[in-house]
Amino acid sequence: MKVYNFSAGPAMLPQEVMEQAQDEFCNFHDCGCGIMELTHRGKEFDGVINAAEQNVRDLLDLSDDYAVCFIQGGASMQFAMVPMNLMLPGGLAEYADTGTWSAKAMKEAKRFGEVVTIASSKATNYDHIPNIRHWKPTPGSSYLHITSNNTIFGTQYHDFPPAVPEVPMIADMSSDIMSRPLDMKQFGMIYAGAQKNLGPSGVTLVIIRKDLAARTPESVPTMLRYSTYIDNGSMFNTPPTFAIYMLKLVTDWLKNLGGLARIEQINNSKSEALYELIDKGDFYSSPVKPDNRSKMNVVFRLPSEELEAKFVKQAKEAGMIGLKGHRSVGGIRASIYNAMPLAGVETLVDFMLEFERNNG
Amino acid sequence: MKVYNFSAGPAMLPQEVMEQAQDEFCNFHDCGCGIMELTHRGKEFDGVINAAEQNVRDLLDLSDDYAVCFIQGGASMQFAMVPMNLMLPGGLAEYADTGTWSAKAMKEAKRFGEVVTIASSKATNYDHIPNIRHWKPTPGSSYLHITSNNTIFGTQYHDFPPAVPEVPMIADMSSDIMSRPLDMKQFGMIYAGAQKNLGPSGVTLVIIRKDLAARTPESVPTMLRYSTYIDNGSMFNTPPTFAIYMLKLVTDWLKNLGGLARIEQINNSKSEALYELIDKGDFYSSPVKPDNRSKMNVVFRLPSEELEAKFVKQAKEAGMIGLKGHRSVGGIRASIYNAMPLAGVETLVDFMLEFERNNG
Repeated sequence: MKVYNFSAGPAMLPQEVMEQAQDEFCNFHDCGCGIMELTHRGKEFDGVINAAEQNVRDLLDLSDDYAVCFIQGGASMQFAMVPMNLMLPGGLAEYADTGTWSAKAMKEAKRFGEVVTIASSKATNYDHIPNIRHWKPTPGSSYLHITSNNTIFGTQYHDFPPAVPEVPMIADMSSDIMSRPLDMKQFGMIYAGAQKNLGPSGVTLVIIRKDLAARTPESVPTMLRYSTYIDNGSMFNTPPTFAIYMLKLVTDWLKNLGGLARIEQINNSKSEALYELIDKGDFYSSPVKPDNRSKMNVVFRLPSEELEAKFVKQAKEAGMIGLKGHRSVGGIRASIYNAMPLAGVETLVDFMLEFERNNG
Repeated sequence: MKVYNFSAGPAMLPQEVMEQAQDEFCNFHDCGCGIMELTHRGKEFDGVINAAEQNVRDLLDLSDDYAVCFIQGGASMQFAMVPMNLMLPGGLAEYADTGTWSAKAMKEAKRFGEVVTIASSKATNYDHIPNIRHWKPTPGSSYLHITSNNTIFGTQYHDFPPAVPEVPMIADMSSDIMSRPLDMKQFGMIYAGAQKNLGPSGVTLVIIRKDLAARTPESVPTMLRYSTYIDNGSMFNTPPTFAIYMLKLVTDWLKNLGGLARIEQINNSKSEALYELIDKGDFYSSPVKPDNRSKMNVVFRLPSEELEAKFVKQAKEAGMIGLKGHRSVGGIRASIYNAMPLAGVETLVDFMLEFERNNG
C-alpha cells in the first residue's frame, strides 16, 4: 500500500530523491564508497557542499552580501546562537510571540539581553498572527525575531513586517523555508532546521548578512560563532556530510521542478483543497483565523475527541500516517510540506469526505 | 574493483551495515517510509534510539551512574561544552597536550577558566604520549582532559593516567572509541564524534557520569547543557535521526562480531601487520615512539616526499584511497578503524612490499 506521511517533521522527502540516495548509497559516483564514508576534505564532498550552497543561492536569488552556512543543532541551537552572536552589548531585541517555538527562542534570548515582546497572540492561544502594521520596533534594537510558520498552531505569516533600517529582521523559517518565493533583502538572517522542507534532521540552514557576523563578542566559543562557518565554508570541523548531501538532492529536485514560484503554486493547490473542505460544512473546523492559516501545517478539529481518535486510526489503516495533532493542542494536523505530492492531499480529501459521510 | 578507504574520517563503515541501510532506506521495517522521513516522537525511532543507547551500554558495560547522550556539533562542540558545563567557578582544569585536537580543546577551555598543561609532547612534534606516571593533577582541578588517540600524529594512550578522586578524567575518544575494552569507571566523561568508529558524521556520543551534569551554571543555554540531553533522552529537540540509526546498526554489528574484546584482537592484528613491515627495513619509517603508536592511524614516512606522492597515486590506482597524511604533517597515514577488514590491511601490506621492491 502507498503510504502518505503527514508528519510535522522529520517529514517525507521527494520520492525521486529517496530513490537516488538509495541507489548510490554504497557507491557514490562510482568511487567504490558511499558519500557518508568519504572524507569531507576530498573533491567528492566538495562537489556536494558547493552544489548545495549554489542551489540555495539560486533558489533564493541571494546576493554576495549573504553567506550560506550549514550548522548542527537544529533551530533550537539557533535560539541561543542568534542572541549570543547578534545581541548588541547591553542591548535588547524584539521578538514576536506566535507560538511554542517563538516562546522557546525568547527564553534563550533572555540569557543574553532584554527581550521585548513586540507582538503576541498568546492570549487567544496563538490562533492568529498579530497585525504587522501595528508593530513599532524600539530604535536601537539589536534585531527583530519572528517565526514565519508555526507548526503546532497552524499559523503562517503571508506578509512580513516592513524592514526597519538598523533593526535587522531574523526569521525562524524551519517549517516553511523554500515553500514560496522570498525577498531575502527584507531579512538580516533566516534559519531552518532541514527536516521539513530541505532534507533529513541533523543540519540547519543559516543564511546571514555577512556584516552582522562582526557583532559576535570575543567570548563566544568557536563552534558557536557565525564567522567560523562563514570563514571556513561550514567546514571548520567535520560537517554532517550525509545530511548536506540530502539537502543538495532536495534542492536539485526543487530547481528541476521549477523553483519557488512553481512550488508555491503546488502548495497553494494543496492547502486550498483542504481548507475548502474544512470550511464547507460543520463537521470539520479550523481554529485559525482565515488570513493567517498555514499552507504547510493544516490544523483542524472534528466534533469530538473520540471522532478525532477514530479519524487518526482509520486514516492510518488507509495509508495516511502522522495526522495526529501536536500533543499540546490535540486535534488533527496535516503537514503538507513541499515533498507531499498533490496526490497525497487528494487521497486525504477523499478520506475526509468519506469519514464525514460515515460519521457526520 | 574493490575499494579500501583508509580515510581518517568520515571513514568506511562495515559493508553489512551499509547494505542493510541501503536495503531499508526507503522502507523501514515495512512502514512505507524511510527512517529519516519518520517523526522522532514515534515508536519506530523510539526503537532505534533506545537500541542505540542499549548497545552502547552493553558494549561498554555502563552502570546507571552514567548517561548516554547523542549530541550534534562533533568533538569540536564538546571542546566548548566540556568547560562550559564542568569548569568549577573561578576554577582551573588540566589538559594533556598531545596534538592538534588537544590544542583546540585547550583553546576553547581558556574562555571559561584557567588551563593548566599537565603534560605536553609539543616540543618533539607530538611524537609520543608523555609518561603518565609523572602527572600530578592540581588538587581542586575541575577535571583532567586527555585525547586518547591522535589521528594526525598517530599516537595513542595504551594506558590511562591513574584516576584521582575529585578530579574526573574526561577523554576525547573520537578516533578510538570502542576499538578496545574500556573501564568506564576511570572516567567522568568520554565523547566521540561518530565518523570514525561509530557511524557517519553528524552525531557525537557523550557518556557522562550523571552527578557531573549538576555543575552547569544557570547561564548556559538549554542546547549546550548536558542535563538537557540527560533529562530528555537526547530528544529535547529533533535529534539527527539518521545518524543515530546508523550508529545503532554499527553497534549491532560490533556486538554480533563479539564486542570490544574481539574487535581489539582484530585491531591488534591489523596494526601489527603494518608496524612490523614498517620496522623491518629502512624504506618505511615511523615517526612515533614504539610504545605510543596508534592502532587506528598508522602514520609512516618514505625516503622522500616524491616517493610518498608516488605511493599515494599508485595505491589509489590499486584501489586504496585516503592514504595521504594530514596536510599539516605530510607523509602517509593508513587509518584502520574498526570497519577496515583485515583483508584491506593485507592488500595494503602486499602493495607496500611491492612498492618497496620497485622503488627501494
